[in-house]
Amino acid sequence: MAGPFYQKLTEQFQRIYHLQHLQSIVSWDQATTMPSGGNQARSNALSELAVTIHQTYNQNGLTEWFERAEDESLDMSEHQSLREMRRRWQLATMLPTELVKAKSLAGSQCEYAWRDQRHHNDWTGFAKNFKEVVTLSREEAKIRSSITGMLPYDTLIDFYEPEMTQQRLDQVFGPMQQWLPELIQTVQAKQQDWQILPYGHNGHYGHYGDDAQKAVGLKIMDYFGFDFNHGRLDVSTHPFCGGVPEDVRITTRYESEDFSRSLMGIIHETGHARYEQNLPQQWRGLPVGEARSMGIHESQSLFFEMQLGRHQAVLQTILPWVQQHLESDLNITQFHRHYLQVKPGYIRVDADEVTYPAHIMLRYQIERDLISGVIEVDDIPELWDELMKKYLHISTKDNYRDGCMQDIHWTDGSFGYFPSYTLGAMYAAQFYAAMTQQFPTIAAELEQGNIQPITEWLRTHIWQQGCLHTTDKLVSAATGEILNPEYFHQHLRQRYLNDN
Amino acid sequence: MAGPFYQKLTEQFQRIYHLQHLQSIVSWDQATTMPSGGNQARSNALSELAVTIHQTYNQNGLTEWFERAEDESLDMSEHQSLREMRRRWQLATMLPTELVKAKSLAGSQCEYAWRDQRHHNDWTGFAKNFKEVVTLSREEAKIRSSITGMLPYDTLIDFYEPEMTQQRLDQVFGPMQQWLPELIQTVQAKQQDWQILPYGHNGHYGHYGDDAQKAVGLKIMDYFGFDFNHGRLDVSTHPFCGGVPEDVRITTRYESEDFSRSLMGIIHETGHARYEQNLPQQWRGLPVGEARSMGIHESQSLFFEMQLGRHQAVLQTILPWVQQHLESDLNITQFHRHYLQVKPGYIRVDADEVTYPAHIMLRYQIERDLISGVIEVDDIPELWDELMKKYLHISTKDNYRDGCMQDIHWTDGSFGYFPSYTLGAMYAAQFYAAMTQQFPTIAAELEQGNIQPITEWLRTHIWQQGCLHTTDKLVSAATGEILNPEYFHQHLRQRYLNDN
Repeated sequence: MAGPFYQKLTEQFQRIYHLQHLQSIVSWDQATTMPSGGNQARSNALSELAVTIHQTYNQNGLTEWFERAEDESLDMSEHQSLREMRRRWQLATMLPTELVKAKSLAGSQCEYAWRDQRHHNDWTGFAKNFKEVVTLSREEAKIRSSITGMLPYDTLIDFYEPEMTQQRLDQVFGPMQQWLPELIQTVQAKQQDWQILPYGHNGHYGHYGDDAQKAVGLKIMDYFGFDFNHGRLDVSTHPFCGGVPEDVRITTRYESEDFSRSLMGIIHETGHARYEQNLPQQWRGLPVGEARSMGIHESQSLFFEMQLGRHQAVLQTILPWVQQHLESDLNITQFHRHYLQVKPGYIRVDADEVTYPAHIMLRYQIERDLISGVIEVDDIPELWDELMKKYLHISTKDNYRDGCMQDIHWTDGSFGYFPSYTLGAMYAAQFYAAMTQQFPTIAAELEQGNIQPITEWLRTHIWQQGCLHTTDKLVSAATGEILNPEYFHQHLRQRYLNDN
Repeated sequence: MAGPFYQKLTEQFQRIYHLQHLQSIVSWDQATTMPSGGNQARSNALSELAVTIHQTYNQNGLTEWFERAEDESLDMSEHQSLREMRRRWQLATMLPTELVKAKSLAGSQCEYAWRDQRHHNDWTGFAKNFKEVVTLSREEAKIRSSITGMLPYDTLIDFYEPEMTQQRLDQVFGPMQQWLPELIQTVQAKQQDWQILPYGHNGHYGHYGDDAQKAVGLKIMDYFGFDFNHGRLDVSTHPFCGGVPEDVRITTRYESEDFSRSLMGIIHETGHARYEQNLPQQWRGLPVGEARSMGIHESQSLFFEMQLGRHQAVLQTILPWVQQHLESDLNITQFHRHYLQVKPGYIRVDADEVTYPAHIMLRYQIERDLISGVIEVDDIPELWDELMKKYLHISTKDNYRDGCMQDIHWTDGSFGYFPSYTLGAMYAAQFYAAMTQQFPTIAAELEQGNIQPITEWLRTHIWQQGCLHTTDKLVSAATGEILNPEYFHQHLRQRYLNDN
């Protein structure tokens, strides 16, 4: 039986959980449903809610409650719960309110203007707003650093990926800088004779209605175990996984000439969704019951998208639904090749499994040095061009739109997020290696298109763990070792070069 | 320039407005979109929000702010604004928190059990829960009465219809008790030869898909001036008008064999929606900028549904859309007669324009005497049967399901609401009489199906007035006199007996 101060803290955090529920659903509505004329009122309402949540974190007495709770008799999981509450509270209250407001304002303005500036390739206009965002993010990192003793950029990573640091990322990405560009070229050479045809009849483009694509999407979600009693599929311009664990809202976007992106996007978001839907019930409403980190979250979506979704047996299961609902005479070889084709390009979100990490390494190097003050905003385009040439052999000179202005993340100061994507891909490869080693039948079942033993492993080892353990402990308990990027390298060689 | 205390009050009420925005959108989502598994978490989140709003009303200092603002130099509309803020504040803070919670709990339990009990015609089971709801509502009325000096039942009416009293309602409904039963019989005799055919080809039932019905619904909304940049049409089990003035969400329900109810339901909700969408912009976010009362709100929906929607010229405009999208060979006579047919029945929500007020009078008489303590819960079924026989010549003996258990209103203690429906019908008739007298061309335009001059009149005289004036002043300014039920009587005689 936990003591009264621990109890008061859990009640306070459950209050925050309920308010965040409103935030999630109303934001989902804004992205999927709201007519544009409602936007100003919606923004005001969301901003009022943010203030309310901020006040709940800052309520008088919490400092004392945390101190007193520390002295109460807590069992191990309550200690873990207290640790996570403290972490959220510190993150939420560490910055002066003035800085939070200034950053939010500068971020909104920069992001809003960016939507147009990107379209017009207007780097000069963008850089002007962006410098303010960078100044405030550096200020934020400096304050967080002075309180936590971490390096400034590390405090921003920590927000998304606790315990991850610049030093560890350098160790993870360093070797990849060496092997990845060569691997990309080898795979391209191996694939040079592949013919990739459009998906319509006789290799022509077809026209695929939203309803038909959605019908296949729902079948896929069902196959991947999505719980429709606790979630939905809808449409938005930028696909995402939102809502709350009790009601997970995933979205997609249908392109009439190419259904392959919506189908794979749905698999990706279903990975996020199953993690959310299967978080530990007994810790619902408390930080310790939430997802471990953004890297682990991406590991689940990328496990679904890359480890499962690009597996021939899984595509073989999906193909008949595609043939039936989308009236396509696509064969399995074409279907599989479409998803395995490696082709360096400008745009991160369009990148294949092999070139994607190059986009991330580049962004990581730039944002790391930008926050540390090693480079300035004006240095970015040249550095971008240089690294694109180095990793992918393409140039973005004077092409800001498809270069350093392509992503939304930096526009509102979300520095430290990008590494999560590739960390996720690495964790996913490591999980797959571990589970097939622990239970060799898992791989055999997958060869038959049966993913149930795999998702059961994920449920037990990842989803049901919530935030009870640190990331390193979670990964060690599941796989026997902490993050080891070698599994990802092996996975790529195996899949793309048949190299064991 | 308003003083600092008036200013502080407006900021506080704007805060409440933003929080209520969240409440509206999230409740809309719950009724239209949410999978059922999300319900528990949603209820918790909404309950947390209710507490937050309650705390905002009860913030320390508001009593002083109201006192000090009263002494500040305010212009007339600021005085009106202050009056409405005070009214909302008093309504929200008058009751002890314990009673609010107890009533909310008893109401939820009674309503939840009712859904099943109604189905099983289980009056005994229902009465048990319902007695607790009545006890708490009487307690609520008593406390409100002791503070305001009004009669207990009047304090409940006042919640929905400020300044309306039992005494005035008795004066309004008293004469109608005399003339309505006779009118119903006369109209029925007049209509006895009418043949009402199903809507399909050659008088057979058709099957009308949701998409086709929605297509006609959207055309109708457009014709009635709905602003789609600030609102939407969706589906829910119980149709309603929700959302916020900046983003009004109306809903309907499609029946596959009969499109007439969804079409007229959409017209009704569009009336509510246009009122909300056209409330005064300069008072947005403050109580004085909101709709005047539930009676006036219903007057707008019923104006659209009854005055306009049942007008032959309007139906003539709609008919081609019906013929086109719903592949019906319906003619205008059949279409019109379907909506004009008068037929006493058990169910209020299925009632026609002429019998509807009988259902309301009956409920009014019962709830008035129930709250005053003249009757008890156990007396209701017999009284219901007696009044149904008196007004509509049908008996509900032992039929609780289609009798006193048919409505949701009482189950959670919403006593005082029912009169709003018939007050709305009366106001609507009075508005129509006034505008056609002030601008005779309005009636002529309507004969051509042009409703624009009518909605402009409503915009100027009703929608744009918000809560600036009391209901009596609003109605006097628009029509030259306060509520006069004779216009409604005249309207019914004219439409159903061609009697001028």
